[in-house]
Amino acid sequence: MIVTLLTDFGTADHFVAAMKGVVLSLAPDATLVDVTHQVPPQDVRAGAFTLLAAHDAFPAGTIHLAVVDPGVGSARRPIVAAAGGHLFVGPDNGLFGHLYDLHPGARVFHLSRERYFRHPVSTTFHGRDVFAPVAGALASGATPEEVGEEVTDPVRLDPLLPRRAADGGWEGVVLHVDHFGNCITGLTRAELPDDEALAHGLHLRVAGREIRSFQRFYAQEGTLPGHLFAIWGSAGFLEIVAFRDSAARLLSVGRGAPVVVRLG
Amino acid sequence: MIVTLLTDFGTADHFVAAMKGVVLSLAPDATLVDVTHQVPPQDVRAGAFTLLAAHDAFPAGTIHLAVVDPGVGSARRPIVAAAGGHLFVGPDNGLFGHLYDLHPGARVFHLSRERYFRHPVSTTFHGRDVFAPVAGALASGATPEEVGEEVTDPVRLDPLLPRRAADGGWEGVVLHVDHFGNCITGLTRAELPDDEALAHGLHLRVAGREIRSFQRFYAQEGTLPGHLFAIWGSAGFLEIVAFRDSAARLLSVGRGAPVVVRLG
Amino acid sequence: MIVTLLTDFGTADHFVAAMKGVVLSLAPDATLVDVTHQVPPQDVRAGAFTLLAAHDAFPAGTIHLAVVDPGVGSARRPIVAAAGGHLFVGPDNGLFGHLYDLHPGARVFHLSRERYFRHPVSTTFHGRDVFAPVAGALASGATPEEVGEEVTDPVRLDPLLPRRAADGGWEGVVLHVDHFGNCITGLTRAELPDDEALAHGLHLRVAGREIRSFQRFYAQEGTLPGHLFAIWGSAGFLEIVAFRDSAARLLSVGRGAPVVVRLG
Repeated sequence: MIVTLLTDFGTADHFVAAMKGVVLSLAPDATLVDVTHQVPPQDVRAGAFTLLAAHDAFPAGTIHLAVVDPGVGSARRPIVAAAGGHLFVGPDNGLFGHLYDLHPGARVFHLSRERYFRHPVSTTFHGRDVFAPVAGALASGATPEEVGEEVTDPVRLDPLLPRRAADGGWEGVVLHVDHFGNCITGLTRAELPDDEALAHGLHLRVAGREIRSFQRFYAQEGTLPGHLFAIWGSAGFLEIVAFRDSAARLLSVGRGAPVVVRLG
Repeated sequence: MIVTLLTDFGTADHFVAAMKGVVLSLAPDATLVDVTHQVPPQDVRAGAFTLLAAHDAFPAGTIHLAVVDPGVGSARRPIVAAAGGHLFVGPDNGLFGHLYDLHPGARVFHLSRERYFRHPVSTTFHGRDVFAPVAGALASGATPEEVGEEVTDPVRLDPLLPRRAADGGWEGVVLHVDHFGNCITGLTRAELPDDEALAHGLHLRVAGREIRSFQRFYAQEGTLPGHLFAIWGSAGFLEIVAFRDSAARLLSVGRGAPVVVRLG
Repeated sequence: MIVTLLTDFGTADHFVAAMKGVVLSLAPDATLVDVTHQVPPQDVRAGAFTLLAAHDAFPAGTIHLAVVDPGVGSARRPIVAAAGGHLFVGPDNGLFGHLYDLHPGARVFHLSRERYFRHPVSTTFHGRDVFAPVAGALASGATPEEVGEEVTDPVRLDPLLPRRAADGGWEGVVLHVDHFGNCITGLTRAELPDDEALAHGLHLRVAGREIRSFQRFYAQEGTLPGHLFAIWGSAGFLEIVAFRDSAARLLSVGRGAPVVVRLG
């Protein structure tokens, strides 16, 4: 059984290793895979996007243990979500919000059965004492129904999809800025025409700039460093990128910056 | 068999991978888990603390391969320590010192049997040529007695526990500063009263400041960013933390800074 | 089966995890080992050196998945190289160049069989869509002949070995600067005399300085911080190092800086 881990703990301290030790204590045959531990501290939305982008390369049945948890020790619920054939274990604070959007049949369970926790449960490290032992139990055969009680009101995020404008364009925001400074929008191939039409008719407005260049790949012949263009990114979304540079830095934009796309 | 790795090598070069390749060559079924490779360069005490905090989340029998080794190539002994049901392989320079404190029955063996090394043994990379092959041998069934000869004088560290003061208080130091700037003391629940008494009577002096706030968890209602308080940390020690900030930076303290705790 | 990964993707985003998910989807029993994901962006030569230094600690049959790929989406070929009993999967841009030097019998195959790819193949992430699925196929039993067609003109790098000078010395360059600032030359024990002769007769010129000190190990008694000396490094090459400091910084040199070695 594969168990992935995503946190904002960094890798300098003992935190991630302690979680892995707990998982392996319960599920010795688990295959552990780090997604990332460099989510910006307490940035639930950044964690939510990275999980969205990473999860579907894994086989069905994978357990994703994700802890970006500003509310640790407070009343926020610990949950497991069953979505798209995967299981997601972590705090109920929106971290799995994009997955509910993507997989409308998702079911969510409140981790209310304390016998699955590691005791004594600390007030500061639910990653090790609540989420890791539940992930370990799931990896060794427990079901979401066994470890929790179904709930219907998990914390959600704003929808991924931009709003349709009256003139037929799309009005959205930068969903995420990745490590390279690429600015990821919520637009997918379902909303936009084929590459040929994009290459000839794109008008993308962001940060007071109009970007009209669309490229099929990064290293297109003749592209100059710093050239800004749109491209289909690896997570399936339209991204604003700068050749060998950071688009976020060049445009001075971050997550939430408005993006308007029109064709023609 | 689980083999964890802790080093100060960073993850930019080939060093950690080379150690893993050697372990897997000898123990193909080993499950490898990184504790951290970001121990500050040659900082044996930081490595010792992280190992202390990480090891007990792993099941008995785990082999911990730890290399923070300013004296590589010189006369310091390579050792394996058997402590608390775990095995620790690395240099005899205090890296396992806290574990001898925690597990009084610890036994230590000098890795004197060169047939367990990778030959030719380099003078610069005992992680790959001495410690990893011994960890691999242990992971595939060798015993500490087979790979070394017992010794009784391993290098120790100052005790974890603070000194009892004449007035009933505790005088200690900051044992460790973690990645978040939390300042970890050597005080455990064995020395201090229950949380209720701490919340009403704590007087903690550090860096010329008196901290009287004790919280059961980080995100307690009404806590303001930068608020300094004491909390039971995840490694079981009393920590000085700042809400959404670095206590070490706010207090300008590092490891070794005096900490005095009084109650009442 | 062991599959190692080396990229310039960093570990902050979903990229590395997505590659691992694809490998494990095809080869659930694979043991994954990160070499590094901190190759400087698009620095093919740095990746080539780290792969050279890391690979031979792994057992024969190991599959190395390496992606430093400035030309992703363009016409550069995806390849698998069989060299020294290992397999290397990645772009044909010199990343495996040092391995062809080291293992003269290396064979190279163009990954021309698209049925082994993950579809749809994106134009921006061949790590996930081309290289990882081929590595997964190889890890589950496919042969290089099955996944590609042999070619004889892979992209090579300048030879590792320095040039013999008329006076019997060696004229080369700094091949690589590692994370510690150590400057690695292409000279091996095959070119130079024994340690005794080196210790008494070394004249190494770099950056206008002459280094005459050779040490058998870093922490040699009496060595002062910042002392520059030559040493046999862990990858088997003569390195220029500074005791507890960065030789590259002290000398203001980087990769490609000329190095001349004479004895006597």
